Amino acid sequence: MTDSFETPPNKSHGRISIRASLKPRDLMEDPLHVKNAWRAKIITLMPDAFPGILGISLTGKALDLGLWALDVINLRSFGQGKHLNVDDTPAGGGAGMVLRADVLDAALGEAAQHTPRDRNRWPVIYLSPRGKPFNQAMARRFAACDGVTLLCGRFEGVDQRLLDHHDIEEVSLGDFVLTGGEIAASALIDATVRLLPKVLGNHESTVEESFSDGLLEHPQYTRPAIWNDLPIPEVLQSGNHAAIAKWRQAQAEEITKTRRPDLWQAYLRRKA
Amino acid sequence: MTDSFETPPNKSHGRISIRASLKPRDLMEDPLHVKNAWRAKIITLMPDAFPGILGISLTGKALDLGLWALDVINLRSFGQGKHLNVDDTPAGGGAGMVLRADVLDAALGEAAQHTPRDRNRWPVIYLSPRGKPFNQAMARRFAACDGVTLLCGRFEGVDQRLLDHHDIEEVSLGDFVLTGGEIAASALIDATVRLLPKVLGNHESTVEESFSDGLLEHPQYTRPAIWNDLPIPEVLQSGNHAAIAKWRQAQAEEITKTRRPDLWQAYLRRKA
Repeated sequence: MTDSFETPPNKSHGRISIRASLKPRDLMEDPLHVKNAWRAKIITLMPDAFPGILGISLTGKALDLGLWALDVINLRSFGQGKHLNVDDTPAGGGAGMVLRADVLDAALGEAAQHTPRDRNRWPVIYLSPRGKPFNQAMARRFAACDGVTLLCGRFEGVDQRLLDHHDIEEVSLGDFVLTGGEIAASALIDATVRLLPKVLGNHESTVEESFSDGLLEHPQYTRPAIWNDLPIPEVLQSGNHAAIAKWRQAQAEEITKTRRPDLWQAYLRRKA
Repeated sequence: MTDSFETPPNKSHGRISIRASLKPRDLMEDPLHVKNAWRAKIITLMPDAFPGILGISLTGKALDLGLWALDVINLRSFGQGKHLNVDDTPAGGGAGMVLRADVLDAALGEAAQHTPRDRNRWPVIYLSPRGKPFNQAMARRFAACDGVTLLCGRFEGVDQRLLDHHDIEEVSLGDFVLTGGEIAASALIDATVRLLPKVLGNHESTVEESFSDGLLEHPQYTRPAIWNDLPIPEVLQSGNHAAIAKWRQAQAEEITKTRRPDLWQAYLRRKA
């Protein structure tokens, strides 16, 4: 995958270690790292938030299997002075605190070790409501990279000079304000990791396809055939596969048209 | 707040209990519940995911203080047969598994205890990419309710009859696919809880206002005044508050125009 990774002496695929230390153990000395696995490096003031929800269920199983790897970098370790300060008041006044460029720069330097410098192979992402809205195409792009570095904000934001200088991609989870970037980072990683090879079974892979056509999903039904006096739509029980496919497509179009005119217009443009 | 809550005999404001049991302890017998606190009830197959990230930092502190409460309801407890099955194959064929209406109905019945039936006071939400995109206005609406019930999906989805019958609001975190609804639920709760009274200090409350005008945030800077040969913009160090406000507004407008034409158009329409 990448020649900037050093070859570990031991290629056994073992359990991935989760670390929140100032200095990650040297790859040369660490037989627990799976070579070439997609890797997320997270810079955060809340290292305890990880792996969190990513450590259980499907993503957790994949982490255990070494299908991806996670490095947690504690931003506090790079703080300055006796109190390890990481932030300061905004220049020009105003509420909140701004994360310092010099502190973040040191943490990014740590994260950059053993990663390719090419941002197309290893994006460096700042999670912020000012960013480009995260979507499935972005998840696919990140999944095709060697890994990503994620910077989780807190307080009022980060010093703009850092974002400009390091060619950092700003990504937003949506038009809402979170207390910090950690949940957004978890969402981004979850959506990306499930697209990595071998993480999903064949079953779920197919599901992905139906989202990829840009329409919302058709409704689903399962047993019991009659629930609360409500039957499953007749066509779904007909065994007529062509009719079922047609009905589902019509439902998907109808629900997209009604609920998401923006997606519907984009769909029509693509089809035209 | 609500007369459908029974009055607990003990009004002491204590630590909130997190529960993942089939049957929550009776409110009458439970002095640990803070009366009238905003409450999230989460129906999930991954009870271990909660409180997770919501249990630390700002939302965790607020949870400890009883400013909000969290009930976790394990969907598996309502499963059927020896294996406690919660799902079945999709009617009409196709990949994945669909959560059964009867199983979900039982879990929703459990969640509905001690909650007002009026959906305006207590929304019941299914997190799904088919839903209405979550945004700050929605977070404000949920924060003004008595609480919310959140249904976290897994697999291919849930039986549509359940959604129709129970007047369930479908909410999407964005146009991407997650392995389950748990991270989306965490994001929704985080964004909502930070709007509850007393959760944020005065500092951060003001920050909220700047998002509410519908523009992306202006850039921020802090010490050092010169970093990596890059100075903080001169105007921010001028001490001229009017000039600073004007510069920030212009920056916010410029960045919104460039990055989010959709928000910019909406902003212009509101101003017109």
